[in-house]
Amino acid sequence: MTTWPTHLPGLAWGADYNPEQWPEHVWSEDVELMRRAGVNLVSVGIFSWAKIEVSKGEYRFGWLDRVMDLLHAGGIRVDLATATAAPPPWLTTEHPEMLPVRADGVRLSHGSRQAYCPSSPIYRDRATALAAEMASHYRDHPALAAWHVGNEYACHVKRCYCDTCAASFREWLASRYTLDQLNDAWSTAFWSQGYTDFAQVLPPRVTPTFQNPAHVLDYDRFSDDAILELYKAERDVLRMVTPDVPITTNFMANWTFGDLDYWKWAREVDFVSNDHYTEAQSPDRHVELAMSADLVRGLAGGKPWLLMENSTSAVNWQRRNIAKLPGEMRRHSFQNIARGADGTLFFQWRQSRGGSERYHSAMVPHAGTETKVYREVCEVGAEYGRLTEVVGSTVDASVAVLYDFQSGWALRQDAHPTNDFDHYRHVLGYYKALWQAGVTVDFVAPGTNLSAYSLVVVPAFYAVSDAHAAVVADYVAGGGHVLVTYLSGVADQHTRVRLGGYPGAFRDVLGVWSEEFHPLREDETVTLTDGSTASLWTEHLHTRTADTVVSYEDGPLPGVPAVTRNAFGGGVAWYVACDLDEGGLSRTVENALSGAGVAVSRSPIELVRRKGDVSFLFAVNHTGTDAQIEASGVDVLSGTQVSGRLTVRAGDVVVLREEV
Amino acid sequence: MTTWPTHLPGLAWGADYNPEQWPEHVWSEDVELMRRAGVNLVSVGIFSWAKIEVSKGEYRFGWLDRVMDLLHAGGIRVDLATATAAPPPWLTTEHPEMLPVRADGVRLSHGSRQAYCPSSPIYRDRATALAAEMASHYRDHPALAAWHVGNEYACHVKRCYCDTCAASFREWLASRYTLDQLNDAWSTAFWSQGYTDFAQVLPPRVTPTFQNPAHVLDYDRFSDDAILELYKAERDVLRMVTPDVPITTNFMANWTFGDLDYWKWAREVDFVSNDHYTEAQSPDRHVELAMSADLVRGLAGGKPWLLMENSTSAVNWQRRNIAKLPGEMRRHSFQNIARGADGTLFFQWRQSRGGSERYHSAMVPHAGTETKVYREVCEVGAEYGRLTEVVGSTVDASVAVLYDFQSGWALRQDAHPTNDFDHYRHVLGYYKALWQAGVTVDFVAPGTNLSAYSLVVVPAFYAVSDAHAAVVADYVAGGGHVLVTYLSGVADQHTRVRLGGYPGAFRDVLGVWSEEFHPLREDETVTLTDGSTASLWTEHLHTRTADTVVSYEDGPLPGVPAVTRNAFGGGVAWYVACDLDEGGLSRTVENALSGAGVAVSRSPIELVRRKGDVSFLFAVNHTGTDAQIEASGVDVLSGTQVSGRLTVRAGDVVVLREEV
Amino acid sequence: MTTWPTHLPGLAWGADYNPEQWPEHVWSEDVELMRRAGVNLVSVGIFSWAKIEVSKGEYRFGWLDRVMDLLHAGGIRVDLATATAAPPPWLTTEHPEMLPVRADGVRLSHGSRQAYCPSSPIYRDRATALAAEMASHYRDHPALAAWHVGNEYACHVKRCYCDTCAASFREWLASRYTLDQLNDAWSTAFWSQGYTDFAQVLPPRVTPTFQNPAHVLDYDRFSDDAILELYKAERDVLRMVTPDVPITTNFMANWTFGDLDYWKWAREVDFVSNDHYTEAQSPDRHVELAMSADLVRGLAGGKPWLLMENSTSAVNWQRRNIAKLPGEMRRHSFQNIARGADGTLFFQWRQSRGGSERYHSAMVPHAGTETKVYREVCEVGAEYGRLTEVVGSTVDASVAVLYDFQSGWALRQDAHPTNDFDHYRHVLGYYKALWQAGVTVDFVAPGTNLSAYSLVVVPAFYAVSDAHAAVVADYVAGGGHVLVTYLSGVADQHTRVRLGGYPGAFRDVLGVWSEEFHPLREDETVTLTDGSTASLWTEHLHTRTADTVVSYEDGPLPGVPAVTRNAFGGGVAWYVACDLDEGGLSRTVENALSGAGVAVSRSPIELVRRKGDVSFLFAVNHTGTDAQIEASGVDVLSGTQVSGRLTVRAGDVVVLREEV
Ligand SMILES: [Zn+2]
Ligand SMILES: [Zn+2]
Ligand SMILES: [Zn+2]
Repeated sequence: MTTWPTHLPGLAWGADYNPEQWPEHVWSEDVELMRRAGVNLVSVGIFSWAKIEVSKGEYRFGWLDRVMDLLHAGGIRVDLATATAAPPPWLTTEHPEMLPVRADGVRLSHGSRQAYCPSSPIYRDRATALAAEMASHYRDHPALAAWHVGNEYACHVKRCYCDTCAASFREWLASRYTLDQLNDAWSTAFWSQGYTDFAQVLPPRVTPTFQNPAHVLDYDRFSDDAILELYKAERDVLRMVTPDVPITTNFMANWTFGDLDYWKWAREVDFVSNDHYTEAQSPDRHVELAMSADLVRGLAGGKPWLLMENSTSAVNWQRRNIAKLPGEMRRHSFQNIARGADGTLFFQWRQSRGGSERYHSAMVPHAGTETKVYREVCEVGAEYGRLTEVVGSTVDASVAVLYDFQSGWALRQDAHPTNDFDHYRHVLGYYKALWQAGVTVDFVAPGTNLSAYSLVVVPAFYAVSDAHAAVVADYVAGGGHVLVTYLSGVADQHTRVRLGGYPGAFRDVLGVWSEEFHPLREDETVTLTDGSTASLWTEHLHTRTADTVVSYEDGPLPGVPAVTRNAFGGGVAWYVACDLDEGGLSRTVENALSGAGVAVSRSPIELVRRKGDVSFLFAVNHTGTDAQIEASGVDVLSGTQVSGRLTVRAGDVVVLREEV
Repeated sequence: MTTWPTHLPGLAWGADYNPEQWPEHVWSEDVELMRRAGVNLVSVGIFSWAKIEVSKGEYRFGWLDRVMDLLHAGGIRVDLATATAAPPPWLTTEHPEMLPVRADGVRLSHGSRQAYCPSSPIYRDRATALAAEMASHYRDHPALAAWHVGNEYACHVKRCYCDTCAASFREWLASRYTLDQLNDAWSTAFWSQGYTDFAQVLPPRVTPTFQNPAHVLDYDRFSDDAILELYKAERDVLRMVTPDVPITTNFMANWTFGDLDYWKWAREVDFVSNDHYTEAQSPDRHVELAMSADLVRGLAGGKPWLLMENSTSAVNWQRRNIAKLPGEMRRHSFQNIARGADGTLFFQWRQSRGGSERYHSAMVPHAGTETKVYREVCEVGAEYGRLTEVVGSTVDASVAVLYDFQSGWALRQDAHPTNDFDHYRHVLGYYKALWQAGVTVDFVAPGTNLSAYSLVVVPAFYAVSDAHAAVVADYVAGGGHVLVTYLSGVADQHTRVRLGGYPGAFRDVLGVWSEEFHPLREDETVTLTDGSTASLWTEHLHTRTADTVVSYEDGPLPGVPAVTRNAFGGGVAWYVACDLDEGGLSRTVENALSGAGVAVSRSPIELVRRKGDVSFLFAVNHTGTDAQIEASGVDVLSGTQVSGRLTVRAGDVVVLREEV
Repeated sequence: MTTWPTHLPGLAWGADYNPEQWPEHVWSEDVELMRRAGVNLVSVGIFSWAKIEVSKGEYRFGWLDRVMDLLHAGGIRVDLATATAAPPPWLTTEHPEMLPVRADGVRLSHGSRQAYCPSSPIYRDRATALAAEMASHYRDHPALAAWHVGNEYACHVKRCYCDTCAASFREWLASRYTLDQLNDAWSTAFWSQGYTDFAQVLPPRVTPTFQNPAHVLDYDRFSDDAILELYKAERDVLRMVTPDVPITTNFMANWTFGDLDYWKWAREVDFVSNDHYTEAQSPDRHVELAMSADLVRGLAGGKPWLLMENSTSAVNWQRRNIAKLPGEMRRHSFQNIARGADGTLFFQWRQSRGGSERYHSAMVPHAGTETKVYREVCEVGAEYGRLTEVVGSTVDASVAVLYDFQSGWALRQDAHPTNDFDHYRHVLGYYKALWQAGVTVDFVAPGTNLSAYSLVVVPAFYAVSDAHAAVVADYVAGGGHVLVTYLSGVADQHTRVRLGGYPGAFRDVLGVWSEEFHPLREDETVTLTDGSTASLWTEHLHTRTADTVVSYEDGPLPGVPAVTRNAFGGGVAWYVACDLDEGGLSRTVENALSGAGVAVSRSPIELVRRKGDVSFLFAVNHTGTDAQIEASGVDVLSGTQVSGRLTVRAGDVVVLREEV
């Protein structure tokens, strides 16, 4: 099976390309400018359904044929969309029942994008028919490098609550539970919710007060599955027609989104691709970028992955859409390559003149080519061209972060000890401590064999099955080190609380038990014995076999342990029972790293290695000051030799082919 | 008529008990742990409809029989629910028309709790049928101590806007008004709203802009009545079958709720019970608790009442759910007893494993019995056992607060001089001043004969009928003292403004008139002549016969009276025309108290007396410092003799059987 | 054609008069109190539909006849409403399909006011029938001075999304576009939105994500047109019956509203009238009032206009409704007269006892006539009586502000570089700088010939047609001076971005181009070379022929021009590319004024001249300190002679008949 866009000359570099937005005479200029920019891969047709299928079964490929031919003539490979992301108005006008419905019963209209119910047989039929048509029409086109199915699945319509979905949900449930099992898993004895027939089960539409948490969580799982089925239906069609063309769909494993369990999705694509946009208001936007990149590498199982979309500069959907400063796009690009991407593409090639995203930056801005953006695009494109030997190399890590999308779903529900907990940002806090410690990490799924790692961080792994809990315990028993954070292990996979003291699933391995959660008031902080502080969360924790590392000096629980360390079997298990400030969190993480024998190097610059036959050191200086590190080898971008001491200038990037 | 749960050994102590959430083998452990904790009363079956009536008319009592028998064998009395709070899914699936509808027309789903339209004949029929079945099945069960009808009526579905409600509302109106009277009472000449047929009247659904205030207020009254009818329908069924079993339903007379006029409801129950949960974020949570307790004693007409629900520690529905500190649950419990409760129960006995309230604390936490919570539960249970002679004693007060739920309804509407007025918190401000002055107060309804009181505080008694206004005036004329606060007497019972100067209904008794309201800007404060400040509210006030006590030094109304005092007939009437800061408010209240001959004692501890054959002094120290008061008698909890000087330790509670 | 209410004795002074809210015996007192207050014009019947047409076609004029006769006997003229603003409940009960529908599909109810769909044939038929009936009934009534059609069109129902509107919208589109033109104008190639039949086009109802910006903007235009058609239908009926009675409808050209393009509406009324209420929380409420007055004078083409509604004191619909201080209503009144109003009326005559606006101030307060409000009403009424010779005079200005309502519509959409831009407040910032410089300005529409002005300010003129852009360029080429602010000229009339560098439409005349927008982060400011600061907005600007006046010292764009000045043809064009602080903005505006030869006089008092046969100087002192200016003439209000030096006391107003 082909697992990478075919016939690429090196690292992928390019963008979404939407020629239908421009008159045809622009297209040849496009190809010329792409060549100047070093572009070698573009995604075409993502929102072209209305242009391709102009009425039911009436396909118009002529314009797209000309685009494909032009690109091929220019030496540019095409990641060709199935064009099914946004159904055209003629289709939703004829079949309004395919439009999605909100929890309050409001059926959404067409007029923006991606307006369809994931359970709709109409959408599914028409989308797979279009995919089949695309496949048979372009199966032999020489520009075809990969298939791009749909687009950012579930980006806007995260959940649909229509009657069609209700019926599918009931089938989904019936295939997993008997009625008794359902009532038990959902704890329906509470609040008189017992079901006596599957026909009584509805999507979690608006209700008088809090909904059943297990019901909501299963609806999340059902919806994820329903959407994945759409992808798979198209994929299977494509695979039949073009078995040698790799297939992907672009994930959104990043701070903006969390509604799909990408561990599941990653098994279904030939190569993993991801979209990433930074949070303009955050000074740590590049740290979050690094986390997303590492997470995506984890989804790809360590294999190279593709950054399908990012932005050359500002986006258009945040409250203030901040433009990138000179060098920032370049640093972001190399961060992704450093962390395992074998290419980075942008949304989009040419900034739109009209439509909702006309203020989203692109490779060619409204103002044209005599701009910072296009110049930097050409510069980085040229640099990518010098990094061909990086392709296929991988990233090693001795530390892992266990990341569970579904715990995020469970914890975003209301009626928890606090509503102010954010799962992704909680993980990001630990990631940042590791990043600052110079430690490259892998992200792993629940249930992954952990034995290859020296330390595994387990942040807010909340809804845990017995089997997944056992994997963690076995790892420690066998000599592994883990650092578990609060809200982990509290519940089972149906979000039923594990009894007998928190954190039920990890009580033994951690050697502690907690009798009660003590969230803090808004603006309340408590002081710990090591001088750090905690906010948001504390617990009334007791040690059994663990040692207390840090405890509270004041607040509701003076003297109570806050951070503990437990020798368990051959390994060590840390527990952080409170929401530490940045300093306390860094100290704790570094202690755990040291204990696990992982070297810490607090460099002012970001350092990551990719290894194949040789080792490439990527050094990214996000600061305004030149920095030096010890390193030797060849600076691949400039071609100069470095012996012992490498200077990375303020804002600069260096890629060093290392000498051993 | 029996007016208290039967055969209790003393103060009631216990919880909601929901055995259906647990396997049967847990039930006997429950009874054993209840006995250890001194539990003598539990509420059973509140959310058991789905377990009892498994399809229409098919009742399953076996499991509940076993629970009742076990409890009885353990000597625990049962407050048995009619189980009608939450209709089961099979019923709402068959009759979706019984589900409630929001003002925007969205019909709510089942899947949480208490999803029914208060006007639904289906709900009413099935609920009364179930109540009848419960009554006939358990009429002779020896554990049956009381009936618990429904649960927290209107907690979530405060108002329903469906067509069934619309029809009922029209009948409700037609029985009170002719069309001409309706148009007059509602001032429909404004904005062309005149009705020419009752059939044109709708619930106040969503409209282009502000709704008719009298319409909305009457819909509040109608809804309250409709919900009360549901309670009465079940009560009448029960009373017929078990005339000797007292009947109650749990009120929510507290900061979280204000949608029912409990003065009306209190007349319909055999004993008053109430639910109370503290506001985690507030440092004054125990003061609000005291106000709620006094208000409930008022609803009970001074007779003992039952705290049906409170929490041992955290709840699960606030933004941050703060656990109680050691001693806090105990102090809260004794505060309620001190203020007239003859027992306090918790939600719930055993913390749920699943469902929406699994993070709500209970008597037996997730972590089990070796916990602060269960230990304190056992301790207080034992202490309650020493207070049997308190049962039936009452609380005397020489000061009253006139509390009007319906003025709260009128004032929460928009299009008032400010939207930042909160009726309950306004009353709480005055209550706190009285609490700090060591004064125990009664709460009384509009229209209550006030002659027994030395001072009556009348806070924001806004929508006042002539008859209710006359009661206040007559009381003062006859020698009484009142302290009236701004926004009182402004409108009649249809929220029509009383003309000729504010506050129309009380202008004469107060000896003032106000020509215009002058709310202050956000963040604006003005200084008064006594050094205090006001924010939110001032008025352009003129005295007629009153004396000015305090006036404004700056702001929009320099020199204008802010607090006045008027001799009227044999009595005195104070008016507070602005929103005073805490110091100014305390000073004013204490001046009024002194003038009325009420002693003020600013003790650091909360002191309340209950009197029967003897007098019990309850002393609760909410501070972190030991405190002393002068008192003599027997410390009932410890058995020690106190002569003249009683020390109440930091955080402690003392109950003294006083010597005269 | 008559263009002013007939037979007025001088400046109009009065209010909305709603006698149907009061018993008939109050009416004669009303007329007596009106006479005492100098009232000479009242608007009657605005919300009287339900009282006049009590069922379909059954009209009851008796009560209104008596009102009209009483007013006439009292010498008070009547601005008679067609009474169509709020359909009565009997009509909407019979025709619920005439009620408006929200974007989420919720149909609004009657029960407040103005509940109708602008496309409803039912509403239109019944409203024009009523207007016809009113016209024929009162055509010869001697009190009839003018017609008042509807009321504050679109105030609450800004847009309706019902199926009737959908059909009308499609017709509106089909009369303007072919399908191809529509797809092109709306850029539907983006996101697969291409329409193949007009039947597929919907109102912009709720969608999964951002809607098509050109679609939304056209729906704004369609809705504006549909509402204007309603006005015109009534007007045409009236004009046929009473060709000599002038017709108006009250606009809301002020900070609270922006949903109608009043430039279009102004062409359809016989005289322009406007409603204005100040923003209680703003310390600059009188500056915004001045801007609104100048804007309305612009709408009136420089001819006198009528302030149809304002408030004597507080309103009832803001969060805190602040009462006016003594003198404030008087200053507000004279500000309007100074800026071209030939009269000012209030909402309303007598403060309502009931209904949603009972806390809105009036000429006669709840408290009666012995009040600050009524006394000041009488005082100003008397003063107006001394200003009869002002009637008909006009205001000269050498500076204009180009104001485009539709750019406001385009910019309030989401998915722009920032969501924090407010079009009206942006213009107000520039207006305030001009006001502080003592410069009286005209407001002009896009496309207006500008040659009469020395300087034209062009703030955020965003969506600009080629023709409108050319008017600006031609003006400068011909010697004019313009000051253009950021976000101007960026897009065409379909909000398609003009390519080749911002601000596309004005790049040449300004001599600059901008390669990228750089909005700033929340709370971020940058420093400029003249010491001022900018927030919210900066741009990566390049000069071509322009000179840099001020540039950035720090932030994302150090050294980049922020304010530029370009000599173009015979004129000068300034560009302000950032959001300047108040000081920087004033400095820039004053530089532009000086450059254009406009005198700046920073007086502490507001000075405006009206000129007819003689010149009247209006001097309004908004400060708490007496102020002096050089002036000579007769103080019209006091009758005293002023020679050279005029003192305007703190808070006072002077009107001087100037000597040359
Ligand atoms: Zn669906
Ligand atoms: Zn209902
Ligand atoms: Zn409509």
